[in-house]
Amino acid sequence: MKDALVYEGKAKKLFKTDVPDQLRVEYLDQATALNGARKDVIFGKGNLNNQITSIVFEQLHKKGLASHFIKQLSKNEQLIQALDIIPLEVVIRNVSAGSFAKRLAFGEGIQLERPILEFYYKEDALDDPMINDDHVQILKIANEQEIETIKKEAFRINQLLIELFKEIDIRLIDFKVEFGRRADGEILLADEITPDTCRLWDLATDEPLDKDVYRKNLGEIVPVYQEVLDRLEKKFN
Amino acid sequence: MKDALVYEGKAKKLFKTDVPDQLRVEYLDQATALNGARKDVIFGKGNLNNQITSIVFEQLHKKGLASHFIKQLSKNEQLIQALDIIPLEVVIRNVSAGSFAKRLAFGEGIQLERPILEFYYKEDALDDPMINDDHVQILKIANEQEIETIKKEAFRINQLLIELFKEIDIRLIDFKVEFGRRADGEILLADEITPDTCRLWDLATDEPLDKDVYRKNLGEIVPVYQEVLDRLEKKFN
Repeated sequence: MKDALVYEGKAKKLFKTDVPDQLRVEYLDQATALNGARKDVIFGKGNLNNQITSIVFEQLHKKGLASHFIKQLSKNEQLIQALDIIPLEVVIRNVSAGSFAKRLAFGEGIQLERPILEFYYKEDALDDPMINDDHVQILKIANEQEIETIKKEAFRINQLLIELFKEIDIRLIDFKVEFGRRADGEILLADEITPDTCRLWDLATDEPLDKDVYRKNLGEIVPVYQEVLDRLEKKFN
Repeated sequence: MKDALVYEGKAKKLFKTDVPDQLRVEYLDQATALNGARKDVIFGKGNLNNQITSIVFEQLHKKGLASHFIKQLSKNEQLIQALDIIPLEVVIRNVSAGSFAKRLAFGEGIQLERPILEFYYKEDALDDPMINDDHVQILKIANEQEIETIKKEAFRINQLLIELFKEIDIRLIDFKVEFGRRADGEILLADEITPDTCRLWDLATDEPLDKDVYRKNLGEIVPVYQEVLDRLEKKFN
């Protein structure tokens, strides 16, 4: 019997399982840009992202950071804890790039003197607008205490990810994470950590090893994502 | 001898005076919208805004809130203290309207459960983008302590302005203020408080008594601004 689909996003589908608070995630062979306006089928991408994020979540778990990840099920599937997703894209930036560099005329590739955080309201119809703490509260996305928890957690994830990627000769430029609430109200890291959601630059060459290769039409992304997976597997498996 | 021009903005010009830390402001008969893309000469507007903001600054001063305002010099001129202007548009909202209502699909005219604050980076070339506290710091616009001072001051100004406008049967929907640093580092309210920088709705009818009349082509703005000035003069002069 086919599992019931509970959510279909741009890069994955979530299905029910026999266990009420556990979901099966299927990573898709799909890439999108410009908030979905550009969309392509990319064979192998689902497998790569599923394997990459599985290793990253496992490594974070070893360092004491919990997430919704339970285990990898197959090349393109994983088992996760069901959470009530908070509709917030939490962005941490270590180096100027992308929309930050452009909106504020800051210049690309400049090391920031400390990591900074941005909130985006996850709402496709509004094009995921940037919002501030007051908006998060007034829109009832999260209360003041939850905002503090999310910020603290995001900066902690950043430190762990900087170290993790440095071990495979990659510089973490910026990334986006999402969080969810467990039934008891506990806030946990959710979604994925992949080259779709992080800017990853090769430590030696500054070459992008992430979705910017797709966004900026710099070449094929499968070999690039494969390179990230190979380095992770060599180091951590 | 003509005073030296030190700054020309969309709605006023600033000139040097004989006193080094004092400037003369001349309010202009000019209205702009869409960050200057639309511009019109409106005879009488300079006089009205100068008189309105002079009364408002005087009233704030009486309530213990200092600003750059020293005194009104003529119908369209005032004397101010020279400040190093912080390039931040500080917006406080009591009721949803304008870009807030639109960007977040919040609906117009909804009373917010508490006032909220937004920062915009005052940089015409970038179209005054909305920024958060981290951006303010990383762009060296203000440090953490100054941000706290600015926020506290802006919310205090809001309370005083709500009371002031209520006395003339006007509901304060939202407003924008700017701040500047005195030579000793003290942060003071600067710029102007007029129907150009506030959304003011008639308490009885909800009719706009502000620049939205111009932005939305609802009619002539001179009679509307005159109405605000008449009410202020009747109550406070």
